[in-house]
Amino acid sequence: MIVLGIDPGTATTGYGVVAREGGGAVSLVECGVVRTDATSPLALRLRTIFEGVVEVLERTHPDVVAVESAFYAKNARTALVLGHARGAILLAATLRDLPVAEYAPAEVKSAVAGTGRATKEQVQFMVQRLLRLKEPPRPSDAADGVAIALTHCFASSLPTIASLALRPPRPSVERLAR
Amino acid sequence: MIVLGIDPGTATTGYGVVAREGGGAVSLVECGVVRTDATSPLALRLRTIFEGVVEVLERTHPDVVAVESAFYAKNARTALVLGHARGAILLAATLRDLPVAEYAPAEVKSAVAGTGRATKEQVQFMVQRLLRLKEPPRPSDAADGVAIALTHCFASSLPTIASLALRPPRPSVERLAR
Repeated sequence: MIVLGIDPGTATTGYGVVAREGGGAVSLVECGVVRTDATSPLALRLRTIFEGVVEVLERTHPDVVAVESAFYAKNARTALVLGHARGAILLAATLRDLPVAEYAPAEVKSAVAGTGRATKEQVQFMVQRLLRLKEPPRPSDAADGVAIALTHCFASSLPTIASLALRPPRPSVERLAR
Repeated sequence: MIVLGIDPGTATTGYGVVAREGGGAVSLVECGVVRTDATSPLALRLRTIFEGVVEVLERTHPDVVAVESAFYAKNARTALVLGHARGAILLAATLRDLPVAEYAPAEVKSAVAGTGRATKEQVQFMVQRLLRLKEPPRPSDAADGVAIALTHCFASSLPTIASLALRPPRPSVERLAR
C-alpha cells in the first residue's frame, strides 16, 4: 500500500509518500513541499497547490491520500484561507477517484510519537526512526506530510518492532515538487 | 462580455451568467444552483461543485468569473468549510486561465440595490428589474449568483437607465446544473 500524506498550507504544503509492505514494514518513497508565491492571487496559488499534488499523484500512484484535518484554526480568516488549500488538495485526490482519510493533529502525534501532546521535534525524531532515515525529512512541512502518511499506515495495522528492526537502513529519497 | 457570478456554498452554490453589451445593457444568459449531497464526504461534495462549475464554464464560455468574497464568516469551522467550496470554484476558473474577481457582500448589495445595507429581498427585486425578468431568479442562491455577476458588469461601467429601458423585456432562461 502506498500512502500520500499531506499537510495543507496556502504558502507551503508538505507531503510524504510512504509504502507499507504486507508485513507492516514502512519505507519512505519520497517527500517534499509545494510552495506558492505569496505575491500571487489566491486562485493562482491554489492552482500551484493542485498541480503540485497532481504531479506527486501521477509520479507515485498512491492508493490513498491522508490529509491533516484542520478544525483547530485559530480564527475565521485563517480557517477560510486554509480551507481553500485543503479544497484544492481534496479535489486533486477525488478527481482521480482516490479515497481520502483525515487525521487530526493529535491523532498524528499519538500514532507517530505515542502521545497527542508530542512536540514537533519528537514527531520529527520518530519519523526519522520509523523510516530509518539518516536525518529527519526537511523542511519540517515535508516531515509533517510523512507523519500523516505514517499515521494512515499505522491506523489499520501497527507494524511490529521486529519487522521494523529486520529491515536494513535505507537513505531518504527527498524530492521537492516545483 | 459574459460574466459568471458565483455565490459559493458547500450545500448550495448559486450561479448566474450575465451578458453585458457594448452600450452597457445587461441580460441574463442563465442561472441556477449546484447542490451537493449533505451525506457525502466533503471531498466528493467538492468534486460535485467543481464539476458543476466546469459544466457551466463549458456551456457559457464566460470571460471572467466573479465570486463573493467571504471574510465575514462567523466562526472558524464555518469559514473552513466555506473555504473548501471557494477553493473548488477558484480552481475551476483558474485551471481554464479565467480571471477571477471578488466582491464583498456589501459591494454586491451596493452595486445592485444602491446601498450596502439592502435586504435580500431588495437585491432580488433589483436583479429582476435590471434584467427585465418576470420574477426574481429562484432559488435565492441563483439570484445571489446573478447579483454578483451584475456587480462585475457594473464595476467597470455603469449602464445608463436609457440603455436598460430601450431593451425589450425577455424571459429568464433558468437552468439547474445537476
